Parts: sequence; structure tokens; C-alpha cells
Amino acid sequence: MISNLLPRIETELQQQVSRLDTPRTKIFHEMLTYHMGWTGEGAGPEATGKRIRPLMVLLTTSSCGADWQLALPAAAAVELVHNFSLVHDDIQDNSPKRRGRPTVWTKWDMPQAINVGDALFVISNQAMMDLAKNYPAEKVVRAATVLHNTCLDLTRGQFLDMSYENRNDLTIEDYWPMIAGKTAALIAACTQIGSILSGADDATIELYRIFGRDLGLAFQVQDDILGIWGDEALTGKSAASDLAEGKNSLPVLYGISQQKRFAKRWAASAIRPDEVAEVAQMLADEGALEFSKHEAERLTDQSLEALMKANPKGDAGKTLSQLAHKLLNRSS
Amino acid sequence: MISNLLPRIETELQQQVSRLDTPRTKIFHEMLTYHMGWTGEGAGPEATGKRIRPLMVLLTTSSCGADWQLALPAAAAVELVHNFSLVHDDIQDNSPKRRGRPTVWTKWDMPQAINVGDALFVISNQAMMDLAKNYPAEKVVRAATVLHNTCLDLTRGQFLDMSYENRNDLTIEDYWPMIAGKTAALIAACTQIGSILSGADDATIELYRIFGRDLGLAFQVQDDILGIWGDEALTGKSAASDLAEGKNSLPVLYGISQQKRFAKRWAASAIRPDEVAEVAQMLADEGALEFSKHEAERLTDQSLEALMKANPKGDAGKTLSQLAHKLLNRSS
Repeated sequence: MISNLLPRIETELQQQVSRLDTPRTKIFHEMLTYHMGWTGEGAGPEATGKRIRPLMVLLTTSSCGADWQLALPAAAAVELVHNFSLVHDDIQDNSPKRRGRPTVWTKWDMPQAINVGDALFVISNQAMMDLAKNYPAEKVVRAATVLHNTCLDLTRGQFLDMSYENRNDLTIEDYWPMIAGKTAALIAACTQIGSILSGADDATIELYRIFGRDLGLAFQVQDDILGIWGDEALTGKSAASDLAEGKNSLPVLYGISQQKRFAKRWAASAIRPDEVAEVAQMLADEGALEFSKHEAERLTDQSLEALMKANPKGDAGKTLSQLAHKLLNRSS
Repeated sequence: MISNLLPRIETELQQQVSRLDTPRTKIFHEMLTYHMGWTGEGAGPEATGKRIRPLMVLLTTSSCGADWQLALPAAAAVELVHNFSLVHDDIQDNSPKRRGRPTVWTKWDMPQAINVGDALFVISNQAMMDLAKNYPAEKVVRAATVLHNTCLDLTRGQFLDMSYENRNDLTIEDYWPMIAGKTAALIAACTQIGSILSGADDATIELYRIFGRDLGLAFQVQDDILGIWGDEALTGKSAASDLAEGKNSLPVLYGISQQKRFAKRWAASAIRPDEVAEVAQMLADEGALEFSKHEAERLTDQSLEALMKANPKGDAGKTLSQLAHKLLNRSS
């Protein structure tokens, strides 16, 4: 089923972004198509990302028994929001690469890249209003309101993430609001919007929301674990790079809370690349790996339980469940 | 009438922005309230700006015979869009000051300022959806679609403006699409949205749109004239600063098109502060002042003619007409 959806998502995204394919804004349009992975050096499936979020929208709509094709503009909208946040994130983090290619701000410049992010965000709004061709206006307003509220959560998460840099007094309680905004909110919006558009009842919509939210949280905790103890061959990024980068991940915040050897070492100075293996072991010895794995498991269970209760139907329901299991490294 | 509207606009804006006034995002909220002119050093009426755009929304709604109070969320939305674009503009232009105060990116930093702009934009979207409390959903979708389309025009104008830097081959035809996006589109959206919400017929909405658009264009051309030949005592910025800054204003593009002394001087190197008076005189001698004044007059006439045809009613109609005359330096 996914192989049927992906080309339709891509076509819808391209049509939405083509709003900028006008005589005087060809280069502007090119900046967006480059970031989306369609044009320029390294363009192709590797550069587009997996389109998980739009898939979640369409699979949710279809698993509620409605026609997923009508929800395509919403699927494009959430992916455009995701990409708007990536373009601005790359500037904010001073990141030179994204999916192996130069970021927009390094390829053009920072002022243009800010504007590219803004344009992706604007087009996501326009895509949401396109839903009015397929749904009653009340439903469009409800779905758009969910997406806008989610976007405010994204800016909250981004604020917290940036504010946490260079702080040594963070606790585990500081972690959840940040990743709730940065990672979980948009995935929750996907399943919430997908079920709203399908005409599901409020209880079902709430179950889909929890499914998406806890999937996002569990996914982030897993990512944090891999960032410290992951196999470089599997993750594609150098093992334990999160430690050297000083990232306030869940295992690190757990380690700080233990006030033992790791906490002292972390507070003293940045972790050098040649000591990451030793510090990762120290952190595992103090229980951070076990704690984080337990949190990931708890959230995974909650997510899959909500999905089961929502009772997703048909091929789409099976595919949605398989996708969730795959993202959460569970056999389905 | 304006003195009745302004405090209500300010209250609505503050309520909208207070979405970020939550325990973990106090500092984030403060960044927005600082930019809006409510808090921090130099806060007050000088720092807020004139709120022309929300006034245009409310006066238009009321001059169409409808209750302006219902349109307050839309008034807040257009002002939030304006301020989102200012925050990002200040980063893109590397501007240290805005309305006499340090810009957000200088007071905090560039990454946080990008996020502040994003949040203002998100809240403008949320404000638009708040209209659903006062209007049928169809009207909300129509008004929001107008605002979203306008925002894409803003990014187009911003792209052109940034692309024009360091170019010497621009013509007058390059000027209009840029200021159409950067200045006129949002003012046109104000009058268009105000009339849509009031339930005006399509012909009237179109007249209000043209009124707003040409008002915006005329206002920008006047601003360009003042930027070169303005009285420093009146404009508050150093006379002829636009020449020293290399701004591609209408008079400059006219001067380039004449291919005379000014064009050669402009192409050779940046204008030094000690020669701006001489170059401004050169540009006037070659007809750029007369040409620009003529364009401003033409657009002013078109704008006021459209307003007259729209037949604005009551106190609001008079006030709207007075505001337009004042902005266009015409006695009413």
C-alpha cells in the first residue's frame, strides 16, 4: 500500500510547491525543490526523506474507512511543516549537511534560507485550505486549527531546545516538554488530522492522537539511545556522537540526575571524541541505558495500545500497524 | 473612532500572543512582547508602530456596515504577519535597530529570533481560525486563504528584494513585482479580508482590494522619494540614506534607465555619504523625482477612486478615507 501512496504524496507536494514556479521566482522555486530532494546534486529518494508524516495522515484516514485521496493536501501540509522546521533548524544549529547534501543556507545564504523556510510554511497553510475542495469548511477549520496549535508546540520545543544549550542544571522533567514539541506534536497532528478528516468520532480521534504522540516520544527516546550506544553501521552517524555534541538527551539527563561519576564528568567540560566510548560505558553502568530502554518500551506499549483500541480497518490499518512496529523496532 | 479601535486591537494582540505565556516559555513570550513594543526598554506607543494594518481591517469591516468587533482576530492576524516579517527582515538585513530599539536578534540571538518570527506567524494563523467563533466556517476559510496567498506574495517580494542586492542591471519593471509583494500585498489583504468578513458582494470586495493595493504601492513610492529627497527633520532618518545604502528604489531604477551621468556613477561604486547630496541632485536633474512623483500621484488617484466607488459608510467610512488621505499626504 505504501508504494501506492508515496508517488501520490510526491506529486501533491510538487504541485503545492509549484506555486513558486513563476517567471520571476524560478531560483526561489529551485531552492525549495532542492531542499525537498527533487532537484540539484544528490536529488532522489535518499534526499527526500521517508515521508513518514504524510503516510501517517493517509493511512489513518484510510484505516478509518474514508478515501485517503481526499486527504492528500493535508498529507502535503504536514510534510511541508516538517521541512519548514528542518530548513530553519539547520540555520539555527549551524548544520552544513542535511541527508548528506549541503543545507539550503550553505548552498545559497542564511537570509534566503530563512525565506525558504517561511515559504514552505506558507505553502503548508495554503495546502490546508485546499482541503475545502474535498471537505466541508467546518472540518477544514478544525483540521487547520490542530495543525496551527501543533506549529506553536514546535516553536515551544525549539525554544526549549535552544535554551537548554550550555546548561548543566537540567532534569528529566525538562526533557519531555522539549521532545513533546520538537518530535511528538507533529506526528500526533498527522494521526489526529487523518482521523478528523475521515469523520471519526471524538473518542477515536483522541486514540489516534495518543497513538501518534507516544509513537513520536518513543521514537525520540530510541533515537537518543542510538545516539550514544548505537551501531555506527546501522545508524549511519558516528557512534556516541551525541555525547561529543553535548546533546541533552534522555540518557544524559538521567545520568546527571544520578549525581555520580558521569554527572561530574559532564559538568566539568565537553566530552572529547577519544573518550566517548569510556563515558558511554560510564553512563550505562550508572543505569541510564536501562532507564531509557524502559521509557522507550513504556511509550511504545502505550502507543500500540492506543492504536489497537482505535481499531484501524482494512489494508491501511494493517499497514499503519506495520509502519508503527517498524518505526518502534518491534516485530508486528 | 481610531482612538476607540486602538486599545481593542492592542488587547486582542496581547491575548493572541499570551498563548506563549506558559510556565516553561516565559522568556520566549517576553521575546514576542518585547518585539511587539509592550515590554522591555523603550516599550510604549513609539515602539508598537501605528497598527495601520489592523485599523484598515476594522475600518473596512465597519464601513461595509458590519460589526468591527467580530473582526478583531483578523485585525490581530494581519498585524502579527507584519511583525513576523519584520523580525525575519531584521535578521536578513542585519539591522541592529527597529523603531529606535535593539532588534530581537541583537537582544537575544539569531537562532532565537528566527523562532520568534516563526511563532508570530503561527499565532497569526491561530488568530485567523479564532474567527470561527464569530463567522461561518466558509467565510473563515475564504479569509484565511486570502491571507495565506498574501503571505506567499510576501516571500516572493522578499526573495526579489534580496536577489536585487548587488545587481546593476535592474529596470523599472523589476521594481513593481518586488514592492507588490513586500508592501502592497498585505495592505490589500487587510481591506479584502475586512470586506469579506462584512459580507460585502464580490464587486465591492474587489474595489476594497484595489484600494488597499494601490494605497500600499503609492505609499512605498512616496517612501522611496523621501528616502532620497526627504527632510531629515520630518522623516527621522538621515536624508538620502537610501542612496548610500544602495537601495534599488523607484527613483534609482528610473535613473539607471536614463543611461546618463547618474547611471554611470551608480554602476561605478557605492555612493559615499559625503556625495549623497550631489548624487540626489543629479538624479533629480535627470527627471527621477518628477517621474516618481507622477507615479505616486497616479497610484494615489487610483486608490482613492476605488475607495470612493466602494462607497464606505458611516463614521468608519469617513475615518478610512481620512486615514488613506493622511497616509498619502493628501488633504481629505
